[in-house]
Amino acid sequence: MSIGYMAIERRQQPASIQVCRPPDVVVFPRCVEEVSALAKICYRHNLPIIPFGTGTGLEGGVGALKGGVCFSLRKMDQVLDVHQEDFDVTVEPGVTRKALNSYLRDTGLWFPVDPGADASLCGMAATSASGTNAVHYGTMRENVLNLEVVLADGSVVHTAGKGRRPRKSAAGYNLTNLFVGSEGTLGIITKATLRLYGIPEAVVSAVCSFPSVQAAVDSTVHVLQAGVPIARIEFLDDVMVDACNKFNSLSYPVTPTLFLEFHGTEDSLDEQVRTTEEITSANGGADFQWARDEGTRARLWKARHDAWYAALALRPGCKAYATDVCVPLSRLPHIIVETKEDLIQNGLTGPIAGHVGDGNFHCIMVLDPDDSDEVQRVHQFTERLARRALALEGTCTGEHGVGLGKRALLREEMGPGAMGVMQSLKESLDPKNLMNPGKSRHGTIYRLGYSGYYAYRRNYLAVVLLIG
Amino acid sequence: MSIGYMAIERRQQPASIQVCRPPDVVVFPRCVEEVSALAKICYRHNLPIIPFGTGTGLEGGVGALKGGVCFSLRKMDQVLDVHQEDFDVTVEPGVTRKALNSYLRDTGLWFPVDPGADASLCGMAATSASGTNAVHYGTMRENVLNLEVVLADGSVVHTAGKGRRPRKSAAGYNLTNLFVGSEGTLGIITKATLRLYGIPEAVVSAVCSFPSVQAAVDSTVHVLQAGVPIARIEFLDDVMVDACNKFNSLSYPVTPTLFLEFHGTEDSLDEQVRTTEEITSANGGADFQWARDEGTRARLWKARHDAWYAALALRPGCKAYATDVCVPLSRLPHIIVETKEDLIQNGLTGPIAGHVGDGNFHCIMVLDPDDSDEVQRVHQFTERLARRALALEGTCTGEHGVGLGKRALLREEMGPGAMGVMQSLKESLDPKNLMNPGKSRHGTIYRLGYSGYYAYRRNYLAVVLLIG
Repeated sequence: MSIGYMAIERRQQPASIQVCRPPDVVVFPRCVEEVSALAKICYRHNLPIIPFGTGTGLEGGVGALKGGVCFSLRKMDQVLDVHQEDFDVTVEPGVTRKALNSYLRDTGLWFPVDPGADASLCGMAATSASGTNAVHYGTMRENVLNLEVVLADGSVVHTAGKGRRPRKSAAGYNLTNLFVGSEGTLGIITKATLRLYGIPEAVVSAVCSFPSVQAAVDSTVHVLQAGVPIARIEFLDDVMVDACNKFNSLSYPVTPTLFLEFHGTEDSLDEQVRTTEEITSANGGADFQWARDEGTRARLWKARHDAWYAALALRPGCKAYATDVCVPLSRLPHIIVETKEDLIQNGLTGPIAGHVGDGNFHCIMVLDPDDSDEVQRVHQFTERLARRALALEGTCTGEHGVGLGKRALLREEMGPGAMGVMQSLKESLDPKNLMNPGKSRHGTIYRLGYSGYYAYRRNYLAVVLLIG
Repeated sequence: MSIGYMAIERRQQPASIQVCRPPDVVVFPRCVEEVSALAKICYRHNLPIIPFGTGTGLEGGVGALKGGVCFSLRKMDQVLDVHQEDFDVTVEPGVTRKALNSYLRDTGLWFPVDPGADASLCGMAATSASGTNAVHYGTMRENVLNLEVVLADGSVVHTAGKGRRPRKSAAGYNLTNLFVGSEGTLGIITKATLRLYGIPEAVVSAVCSFPSVQAAVDSTVHVLQAGVPIARIEFLDDVMVDACNKFNSLSYPVTPTLFLEFHGTEDSLDEQVRTTEEITSANGGADFQWARDEGTRARLWKARHDAWYAALALRPGCKAYATDVCVPLSRLPHIIVETKEDLIQNGLTGPIAGHVGDGNFHCIMVLDPDDSDEVQRVHQFTERLARRALALEGTCTGEHGVGLGKRALLREEMGPGAMGVMQSLKESLDPKNLMNPGKSRHGTIYRLGYSGYYAYRRNYLAVVLLIG
């Protein structure tokens, strides 16, 4: 058997603050057969397998807690099949969402799930990613039709049957959505068939300021109740707006603000915008601005797009970590107000940005990683925030996943019954616990501080795995 | 321990043509604690457990192949929590979709998934049901937020954690969608939390005739590409239109026909209808009629609504069985044309109705159940149709589920890899194979003809299970 050339990589730099240990080896398979052959070797020798897409995950999902073999999938980067009339495409795991959308440009179709980073699509499937468009287009859970997965023992499985791509199915257990969000702990995703959408004929962006969080959330609820098919509805709190004003020399009122985007035809957008403006106005919204041309739209949304960098600029030289709770919409004002008080009381910097149509929001915690006291306070704040979400019938992670940092919280969220079921599923599909061990929903709870923050950044020389 | 009163039922009459054996006992638990206690008894004594909602499933999912205890959940019929601002509701398993929608009437919200029958919502979750609205609102897979499930051993699990109802989550394995579509083979669904939607301000219905199946499908693809948020787009073939004309004294052209429905605001509907009419016209569509007032809408859609009865009326005294394949949209013309030829060649009556926006269609097979030769020909036709769908990258069931009739086809569809994974999951959650045994995706393949057609219809006296 010959696996052929596999490159050596000197650096793997994942985006997460949680990651603290490099793998022993990085391999760069070029096809599913290589992935399968490599997995078989790992299986035979009991070596942990860590799938790696772009390393843009935020919860340490690619850390090699127990060492082992990192499967970097970037060399499998082909867009395999675009079916324009069927609104679907199949991609290899190295294809990022931006690469796919530029590939699709001439087809009139696009893939809308947008977690911010230019993540790999199979990585997004593995993490159950979503982002700003989810309120209209859904998350990865709703947009994956089929997956090719290599299990720990090297066997290749197609979750909806090989090559199948009906838009809906009631055939057998929904294996596709078992692997979506499994964070590499059940198998290596080597192919994904995704739903596509028509590129909207026109787009309108809008911004509106509110006297309170409650008014912004009420507007969101009313817009959804009115059936406005809004494509994005993003919330920034006053602290974040202030940061954005300073970062980009803007002059938005320093109050809770909604950034909105409408997709549709020219005519339908007029009505969507009109209805939304009426609703925001009835809820005390002010300074409703909207734009249709690309230049003005980009200017209107600049604050939202640059939020991460604006937050970082609040404390030059610091690093950022984004929390990720999600609660029922009606609970948003309560949790946001409490959270802002908590931040103030604990002297922490954490401007808020949220996908308010889904009830999902992030505090962008700006912290000095060398200040162990602050690191500790951020850690405690993050846990309090998650527990607040749990107390309000929400989740500790709306879209970033569990990774390393939220395994204890996951247990609290799910309870022993559901955790027991997850554990059973894990054991039945990966009895040797080789797939991304120590992550997500199983195994011992490691109490990780931020001490290992940049441990992963040290260079290391990966060994070429020779297979003869 | 006292379980209290459980009624005796003389008849259980499921809708399926497949069912052929009654259970030994029917129990009528009134709460999850009773379900759990009863399941524990079954587990201790190795008694099969057959969950029963309304018996409206079409693939024999409630047949008690190995006898055992039927859990009729109709006495658990409370709508538990409506959260208007959060667009969600929690229901017990005896609540049907019509009961829920009348309960919701004053809230301005509704639950859109509509499989035709007034099925129980938890039963619809168990079967991964969908229907005419799925093209816009999704199937049960997209609309269940959380489930309470009693496992074979009587333990109670909440698939997204007890009481949780965020609109999205990346926390742990997606257990909710593992149980959605599991057809009672993994556990008894005792509670479901569902997404709700604003009742549309206005509705427009439309009808349009086409020169060919290709023209009707092309119109569908173009409508979706244009981003028209169409709520329903239903196809009837010429045979079905003819049957409907005769049944309701209508005079639609006897050609492939689309029945459309648009949901939105008054203004947005004008544009949706205009765009759609332009598209259908460009594809050779004719006689485009549309209506906004309820009376005319009902008249326009009468043919679609009565299709099942119109088909039955083609051969008085016969029974009907609906096939249920689903293929990528572009494959629809090919498979429908081939299928119509097959029907003619084999002298079978099977007018076609389809949820064409999803690529899902049904031949309503009208047959004499006492004519064993015809029964056999229908059986063979159904298998050929399913294999045709499989050859075109589709599925043998878009929405009815696998039940008894499609287990061999499921194996062909999924292949040994995915079937092995499903088998592992089944064994890990139900090691004694007590949950709805012999159904869906596991166990021996029973070759069932239609001989047992009405076996289940005989009266039987259920025994009260006394627990002291």
